[in-house]
Amino acid sequence: MHVLHHYQLSAASRFIRLVLAERDVVYLPKLEIPWERNEDFLRLNPAGDVPVMVSDNHGVIAGAMVIAEYIEESESPALLWGDIAARADIRRLVHWFEVKFANEVGTPLLSERVIKRFSGEGQPSSAVIRAALSNLNIHMQYIDWLAEQGSWLAGKQLSLADLAASAHLSVLDYLGDINWEKHPEAKTWYAKMKSRPSFRELLADQVIGLKPPAYYSNTDF
Amino acid sequence: MHVLHHYQLSAASRFIRLVLAERDVVYLPKLEIPWERNEDFLRLNPAGDVPVMVSDNHGVIAGAMVIAEYIEESESPALLWGDIAARADIRRLVHWFEVKFANEVGTPLLSERVIKRFSGEGQPSSAVIRAALSNLNIHMQYIDWLAEQGSWLAGKQLSLADLAASAHLSVLDYLGDINWEKHPEAKTWYAKMKSRPSFRELLADQVIGLKPPAYYSNTDF
Repeated sequence: MHVLHHYQLSAASRFIRLVLAERDVVYLPKLEIPWERNEDFLRLNPAGDVPVMVSDNHGVIAGAMVIAEYIEESESPALLWGDIAARADIRRLVHWFEVKFANEVGTPLLSERVIKRFSGEGQPSSAVIRAALSNLNIHMQYIDWLAEQGSWLAGKQLSLADLAASAHLSVLDYLGDINWEKHPEAKTWYAKMKSRPSFRELLADQVIGLKPPAYYSNTDF
Repeated sequence: MHVLHHYQLSAASRFIRLVLAERDVVYLPKLEIPWERNEDFLRLNPAGDVPVMVSDNHGVIAGAMVIAEYIEESESPALLWGDIAARADIRRLVHWFEVKFANEVGTPLLSERVIKRFSGEGQPSSAVIRAALSNLNIHMQYIDWLAEQGSWLAGKQLSLADLAASAHLSVLDYLGDINWEKHPEAKTWYAKMKSRPSFRELLADQVIGLKPPAYYSNTDF
């Protein structure tokens, strides 16, 4: 069986859990606390980040975008579909969330709100949190705009773009950082994502010592 | 003809220039100063980053990894080759340089040494430069180790991994930040990359007001 090393509040890990669940791929999840820098795990992935997949047939596959492309090449249905231009647009949005959104919003908020708390390393910086929340608002406007164009973020059917975006938002929603009332188009799209069977496991996540708001797991929020 | 919006000292732009030159794809380069936030350019790519390719047939393709996958699907020879495991390893290394190396080394050094200088926004921080150079040393050891395993960074032939890695190093080499004597295996591999015809254009790059060291363009350094 494939093994997936993940952390519950790692957006990139959640993205891959969705990618696997959408294809009903069975795997053994293994919890990894990335900031603990476990030596066995660093031997698997010198980058030290989750997710890492250990595939039955192909060994270690490290990094969410790499795992997503790998699964795309080996499982169906396709979530990176269409002609060469459609595929480029899906990839653009996946990279947008995995790199730009993560750098500007997700990583600083996780670091200030979660990692500093559990690792005991320093006090959260309110300046960093404020900047990340201000960036979040701009990204939410972009998601509103994308969701207004059609049912899905890229093109006319579910794609990796929807999974990446909803995975990243779901972590911030767990932390109570999203004001859905200000972003009705994004909310409609996200409600649809939350209702998918693939999302159930994410909505059941519980990190000890850090409770999500009540609406986090509610598909009618 | 394809148009490539790029900046000379953007490692991601250099990666795509190599990807195109290795396939002899003819394109029109268009210089973009990313921190000037040109409005026409932001309309093309709301992320505001270079590189962006405007393809003859498929319109705007934004982001180095997205462009690399796009060109892979439309041009030969393959630089993302082999079985599913080999492809995952090439992608892992491309992402390593495009994301991890960029975040830990390339982006802070470019920001402190180049962007602050030309944009006039603040003084370079010696603490940030010191931290980035210390990270660079760890990455160079990893490249030494990869280069020791064989002629190329991933597997037995040239791949996107070599192009991404050498593009990122070439920017730091332009800034004079690499101590090649301490990294003989990486140096042997990089000398081979520099000797490729695809590299010539990068070695001829000149940024006004910022001269590279004499050895930068020398293939026997």
